[in-house]
Amino acid sequence: MPQFDAAFRAKLVDLFRWRRDVRRFRPDPVDPELVRELLALADLAPSVGNAQPWRFVLVEDRERRRRVREHFLEVNARALARYRGERAALYARLKLEGLDRAPVQIAVFCDEATRQGHGLGRPTMPETLCWSVVLAIGQLWLAARAHGLGLGWVSILEPEAVGRLLEVPATWRFVAWLCLGHPQEEHLDPELERAGWQARTPLEARILVR
Amino acid sequence: MPQFDAAFRAKLVDLFRWRRDVRRFRPDPVDPELVRELLALADLAPSVGNAQPWRFVLVEDRERRRRVREHFLEVNARALARYRGERAALYARLKLEGLDRAPVQIAVFCDEATRQGHGLGRPTMPETLCWSVVLAIGQLWLAARAHGLGLGWVSILEPEAVGRLLEVPATWRFVAWLCLGHPQEEHLDPELERAGWQARTPLEARILVR
Repeated sequence: MPQFDAAFRAKLVDLFRWRRDVRRFRPDPVDPELVRELLALADLAPSVGNAQPWRFVLVEDRERRRRVREHFLEVNARALARYRGERAALYARLKLEGLDRAPVQIAVFCDEATRQGHGLGRPTMPETLCWSVVLAIGQLWLAARAHGLGLGWVSILEPEAVGRLLEVPATWRFVAWLCLGHPQEEHLDPELERAGWQARTPLEARILVR
Repeated sequence: MPQFDAAFRAKLVDLFRWRRDVRRFRPDPVDPELVRELLALADLAPSVGNAQPWRFVLVEDRERRRRVREHFLEVNARALARYRGERAALYARLKLEGLDRAPVQIAVFCDEATRQGHGLGRPTMPETLCWSVVLAIGQLWLAARAHGLGLGWVSILEPEAVGRLLEVPATWRFVAWLCLGHPQEEHLDPELERAGWQARTPLEARILVR
């Protein structure tokens, strides 16, 4: 049985602190074997009923990548229109995705029709199936960073449009479009904090005792 | 800037492989300072728009703990009634929570009314707010395991009932009841696999290329 010592825990804290949502990638390719290894690590994530409902779509086709970026630009223009004044100007300056350059792009879905797990743990909280997929993405994110890669989660997309674009089964619910590659820069602070959009706030206000 | 080397990555793989959903706890207390440290690590998780929407409720009151366990027993009896024959007999034998013994119990919510993040990233996928909370739980889970603690996620509860029991704001959506403490046993295989409920299945069927 492995022992986790203080030195490992200190590095794990570094991993959590230096994990970023990355939108600026170098174009260098990523070894496909490493991508498979990262997916295998994500596959070790917890899942409700051991359902393993995550489905990974490696998007390699250039035309599909072009179309998702075009779709992002449309959806993001509508998102921008929700803001006014200085906040709108600030939003317009943000870089929110790396769809143009990320060498690896993975669309992640939840198979809502899976029978694996026999429905255990879900009767009162059916969304735990999708949440299992989110846990797998979190694990993929950390594993990628430990390999010196950056990951960015793009959510400014219409789920149905992505499903159609990728021709996945109708029961697959879209969860995330992940951009993966070598980051151009490393930062300790989130990009949205650096850009003046939203700083982190103190933890104490998020803890209650009952 | 920290470097993550092969030795760290190998330990990280161990962490992913030995992380379990734990339902059998030793009654030994956990240092409250360590619990705070774990919450601070969860607080470093990615969140949409940097919204940090997670809210942690440390449930210390014995009567509230008694009532949530009573509530679990009712909900679980209804869950059992969904199965027939051998599957029902198997379900009845599963241990699905450690509410009776876990020394630390944390109810986790998503503050759906938070203004932090200014709505960024959510117009077409509002559920990403809740998903951020799930990412924080995943990080807490790994950090706890690195400290030799086990965590179990209880989802066989009615979200509204938990909110009422803990008297949290109406805009807080219940995400998870976490049991935390020293595990009685360590295992490489999931409890549901060991109990014959659901084994893990090969990854290849979960990967598509487009």
